[in-house]
Amino acid sequence: MIENRKEEHVKIAEKENVTADHNFWDDIHIIHQAVPEIDFDSINTQVEVMGKRLNFPLIISSMTGGTPLAKRINENLSNMAEKFGIGMGVGSMRAAVEKRELADTYSMLAEKKIPMKMANIGAPQLISQSKRAFSDGDIEYLFNLIGANFLIIHFNFLQEMVQPEGDRNAKGILKRIGEIAGSYPVIAKETGNGFSREAALMLKDKGVKAIDVGGLGGTSFAAIEYFRAVKTDDKEKMNAGKTFWNWGIPSPASIKYCSVGLPVFGSGGLRNGLDLAKVILMGGELGGFARSLLKNADQSQEDLEDQIKFLIRDFKVAMFLTGSESVNDLKKAKYFITEPLKSWITAYDR
Amino acid sequence: MIENRKEEHVKIAEKENVTADHNFWDDIHIIHQAVPEIDFDSINTQVEVMGKRLNFPLIISSMTGGTPLAKRINENLSNMAEKFGIGMGVGSMRAAVEKRELADTYSMLAEKKIPMKMANIGAPQLISQSKRAFSDGDIEYLFNLIGANFLIIHFNFLQEMVQPEGDRNAKGILKRIGEIAGSYPVIAKETGNGFSREAALMLKDKGVKAIDVGGLGGTSFAAIEYFRAVKTDDKEKMNAGKTFWNWGIPSPASIKYCSVGLPVFGSGGLRNGLDLAKVILMGGELGGFARSLLKNADQSQEDLEDQIKFLIRDFKVAMFLTGSESVNDLKKAKYFITEPLKSWITAYDR
Amino acid sequence: MIENRKEEHVKIAEKENVTADHNFWDDIHIIHQAVPEIDFDSINTQVEVMGKRLNFPLIISSMTGGTPLAKRINENLSNMAEKFGIGMGVGSMRAAVEKRELADTYSMLAEKKIPMKMANIGAPQLISQSKRAFSDGDIEYLFNLIGANFLIIHFNFLQEMVQPEGDRNAKGILKRIGEIAGSYPVIAKETGNGFSREAALMLKDKGVKAIDVGGLGGTSFAAIEYFRAVKTDDKEKMNAGKTFWNWGIPSPASIKYCSVGLPVFGSGGLRNGLDLAKVILMGGELGGFARSLLKNADQSQEDLEDQIKFLIRDFKVAMFLTGSESVNDLKKAKYFITEPLKSWITAYDR
Amino acid sequence: MIENRKEEHVKIAEKENVTADHNFWDDIHIIHQAVPEIDFDSINTQVEVMGKRLNFPLIISSMTGGTPLAKRINENLSNMAEKFGIGMGVGSMRAAVEKRELADTYSMLAEKKIPMKMANIGAPQLISQSKRAFSDGDIEYLFNLIGANFLIIHFNFLQEMVQPEGDRNAKGILKRIGEIAGSYPVIAKETGNGFSREAALMLKDKGVKAIDVGGLGGTSFAAIEYFRAVKTDDKEKMNAGKTFWNWGIPSPASIKYCSVGLPVFGSGGLRNGLDLAKVILMGGELGGFARSLLKNADQSQEDLEDQIKFLIRDFKVAMFLTGSESVNDLKKAKYFITEPLKSWITAYDR
Repeated sequence: MIENRKEEHVKIAEKENVTADHNFWDDIHIIHQAVPEIDFDSINTQVEVMGKRLNFPLIISSMTGGTPLAKRINENLSNMAEKFGIGMGVGSMRAAVEKRELADTYSMLAEKKIPMKMANIGAPQLISQSKRAFSDGDIEYLFNLIGANFLIIHFNFLQEMVQPEGDRNAKGILKRIGEIAGSYPVIAKETGNGFSREAALMLKDKGVKAIDVGGLGGTSFAAIEYFRAVKTDDKEKMNAGKTFWNWGIPSPASIKYCSVGLPVFGSGGLRNGLDLAKVILMGGELGGFARSLLKNADQSQEDLEDQIKFLIRDFKVAMFLTGSESVNDLKKAKYFITEPLKSWITAYDR
Repeated sequence: MIENRKEEHVKIAEKENVTADHNFWDDIHIIHQAVPEIDFDSINTQVEVMGKRLNFPLIISSMTGGTPLAKRINENLSNMAEKFGIGMGVGSMRAAVEKRELADTYSMLAEKKIPMKMANIGAPQLISQSKRAFSDGDIEYLFNLIGANFLIIHFNFLQEMVQPEGDRNAKGILKRIGEIAGSYPVIAKETGNGFSREAALMLKDKGVKAIDVGGLGGTSFAAIEYFRAVKTDDKEKMNAGKTFWNWGIPSPASIKYCSVGLPVFGSGGLRNGLDLAKVILMGGELGGFARSLLKNADQSQEDLEDQIKFLIRDFKVAMFLTGSESVNDLKKAKYFITEPLKSWITAYDR
Repeated sequence: MIENRKEEHVKIAEKENVTADHNFWDDIHIIHQAVPEIDFDSINTQVEVMGKRLNFPLIISSMTGGTPLAKRINENLSNMAEKFGIGMGVGSMRAAVEKRELADTYSMLAEKKIPMKMANIGAPQLISQSKRAFSDGDIEYLFNLIGANFLIIHFNFLQEMVQPEGDRNAKGILKRIGEIAGSYPVIAKETGNGFSREAALMLKDKGVKAIDVGGLGGTSFAAIEYFRAVKTDDKEKMNAGKTFWNWGIPSPASIKYCSVGLPVFGSGGLRNGLDLAKVILMGGELGGFARSLLKNADQSQEDLEDQIKFLIRDFKVAMFLTGSESVNDLKKAKYFITEPLKSWITAYDR
Repeated sequence: MIENRKEEHVKIAEKENVTADHNFWDDIHIIHQAVPEIDFDSINTQVEVMGKRLNFPLIISSMTGGTPLAKRINENLSNMAEKFGIGMGVGSMRAAVEKRELADTYSMLAEKKIPMKMANIGAPQLISQSKRAFSDGDIEYLFNLIGANFLIIHFNFLQEMVQPEGDRNAKGILKRIGEIAGSYPVIAKETGNGFSREAALMLKDKGVKAIDVGGLGGTSFAAIEYFRAVKTDDKEKMNAGKTFWNWGIPSPASIKYCSVGLPVFGSGGLRNGLDLAKVILMGGELGGFARSLLKNADQSQEDLEDQIKFLIRDFKVAMFLTGSESVNDLKKAKYFITEPLKSWITAYDR
């Protein structure tokens, strides 16, 4: 059942080492400005992205939904998104379509004053697989359920592939996205393997409004499936999980690849406010956090609030130490990139 | 005796760490395509190589023969080669020439419907060493014994060298290959140290039909000899085994070196279907697996079948995640190469 | 209280691993000259910098002050600075302004014949923060307290930032430095994160006489704050300490960045006389040692004397083995730079 | 006393890890030739260097002398040099000048038919230090003592420097070498830190006949002094030993630097016959082994004989696997170089 799998995902992601072997944010080096000539208290972290004003260039990335645990987590996360004035996307809402009684694990967002709310459906569900495709009515229902401003369509085909029972058809998704993008403001999001330049151009062509790269470097769904498979001694899944553990495009490289004239969100492997500053340096508009908030969101609202405070403070410190009074200033800070990220960044130059 | 040495080889290769220090397939990085726009179930993995149609670009590489254990392994391997519709080469058939009663450790292939069967003799046996050279009659006998389509002539001079009792003459082999290649379709194969460009050009000139690179990165015969020598406290062999443990040309580099107008097979260090996809990306027609199947082939037919299923599935997943509906599409997938493989690839450019 | 924090700093720096992950001095490789054709005993290590003659291009870097422990350490350090005829800067003199009874933890320098004495105030204290800014009178008082030749203004904004109670305003510091530099010979010093080229140009423009780079590679104040925070379970500070542990510009790169027409002092991560020789090779005039002397300065005067003797001997050995009879000769010794420092050095070339 | 120090050197070199952190021979990669088209038994390893014919391009490098242990070792080494028809140099002969009764620890070479015998004196002894310089008579005596063909003058100034009691003057050595080179065929040798191009040109200019690079990568005399100092708790020497542990020019880079029109011998860190083949590839005429033979030379003549046999066999295997029938063929084998050696090799190109 979806619920069980989701709950298991959350628990494994909290406990096991399910991250890619390298975090590519570490390959970005910022030049320190010892004489910043600004006042920390006058730093302005506000951004306006696609008509929405956020207090920080920060979104709580799609994580969970559809289980009692998910409900508690979404409750905590949405309270904080409101409190800090940042964006939030829920986890895949498939469960809410398939079992309407699970709707309340998502719907609390509707009542919160969150400046950017994102509904979330999976690209595989847009077309007919073993189950029927989501209808226009399903999408309308989900979008309204949380009072969404944007509709995330997430691409997770590696995750589908490492599960033998996963969805196996990707043909026709682009066409369907073209239809949906006519009715809703769509954000395309990867769940851990990043978008190539080719993918970004196709998505832009279909009317997608923004791209959330969800690149390699943080949680590896192949790794999560590996640990799930170990428990049940499922050799096929263990094998696939190991083979594709480090498959994908590193998050910072994917931001560069996707800079094709749309707003780009950076996510995948962000650990702190310094990584968030690097999203901005690479050309991203917002940075998305998931795994680094998950454990705290599960523990208590206070822990979560602290964690967000810390990352915001780190972000402001990075702004201060680059002499940046605004997020626009930060975009101009000096940096350089080393291997292995450097080879990824220049992959399309050859 | 040959039988004992062969059996020992198999057992050591199963148990000890006998691989080269680095697996160079890891230095090839494929760009993920999050929006593949194909249906997994419509992926076509068939290939036609030298007039033979295989269901997958996959061959079970020459492994063993000449012992009771080898017989069981070859039985299992040939059943699976038939079942999956892939190629298979037997191990060195020298034993079958020297002791005709060992012929049945190879001959079961004759009855199987395997789309590509490869007989296998060693290059050192083509000329006079301490023993007489193989005659035309010997070759005719071996070729017919398994109903072969191709004759592998394997080059294993490092292996001969680290054994003080090994064959020590290589002079005249090329001339003899020229004669044989007039009568049989010959595939030249290295056993773990790869072919240089110079070697590939000489072999092509003598009429060889294909090259199987058998490069560095997987099983190191020097390492196997090292462990055999440890058991008998043979200091000379231990010394040579250690010195040449990592000698050779990495498999992916050798594929590039050997791209001189003949079909090239990639083997050496392949662990899974993702590595197989990399063989195709590098320009190889087929990928050969040995050590990664050996343990399963020894355990049971079921284990072996599973292992092949897993690697085929991984291969299809790699095709899917690069948006490749056919093996030809896969050849055009985007990738790049990092160190240390990069320096090997460009060694002839300087 | 400042005193307690200072004492704690010293103790943590002595005991814990509070250094950056990489020491970039190791990336500088000097070509050995086997035929030096000089006499070790005729090597001349004297330098003249800004009108002061030092027996070695060596300064004891600003370390401490304001506590009983600091008093003993400064006593030991100043005795040695006199004995060896090298420069010395005291630690931040803020304590002496705020509590005049602590003046004697610094003032012993006044009676010593040290060729280059440096008073030391923090850049954050130049402007109004939670407390009032230092007045002209304060500076006059501190300068005279030790009979200083130069006034170090130290920049430590990362350190301020990782402490939630730290000073948070940097606006107006440059203007104030311009005023002070009209009355005193000012040396701008970083405390572990280095100066960028932009910072060096701004400081030069304001009349600063020399720059002491204090770059990344040695003691990390973020690391020190991390360990302090662990003791009090202060999660906010632990978080910031970890995030910014390796923030900053490596010392040798900062020397290059700051070569804008002023004398540059190299400090940050110097461990021995070979590192000191590398300061000279990179274009620095003097090298500053702190952490590598601290433990000995605390233990006994004899230990400290030995430690300085050793580093001077190493420095002379490096001179000898590059055939350098004078510090000017050493500047012409052959060397090259490898990664990761190389990427830092060339960061402004792109 | 010299004797004690020498004996201690030998014992430490046998037991402790006294090698540099990296062995740069590993950065040279040879392209394997799978189709060698030669007969192992027809491989010709003979070389003629400076009028001497050796069965292998191999010399037993200067190791020891002056003690009872040294006598036994030199006895064993010289027997083997005669047996294998290779070159041999004795350790520093200073002891034989200072105490004539120690002459017999070297003199056994006089009776042996060794194709290349090298007497050995230290460059520091050529000029006046704390003791008087070697006279023409001393040199004549030493040269005749072993019936030498060549006079090694060894440069070991790092070793002198890390010992506070070491010789400290290098001025005038070149002039004296010019005089001596008029009377004897001189080989200049470093003892572990390599020669720069500048040094090679100066030595050539003074009439030196060959250069033995003795580069970084093998035994580090700084390391040996470090371990000696640990025993006596001599902090000064421990400090210098640690600081200069990895000082010097890697052996293969030094071969390239010294290719200024004289025969060059490669030594420093050679472990086996594959490393010897790399000496030839880099342009060296002979390879010198010391530490890798020392332990066996101390144990027994049989052990030593085996060790030399093994390295000769490895060397021939490397020749075979590059299709080299002669040492001249081997010079043309294909290879390439990776980091960190690559940066050293190109240091003079910038």
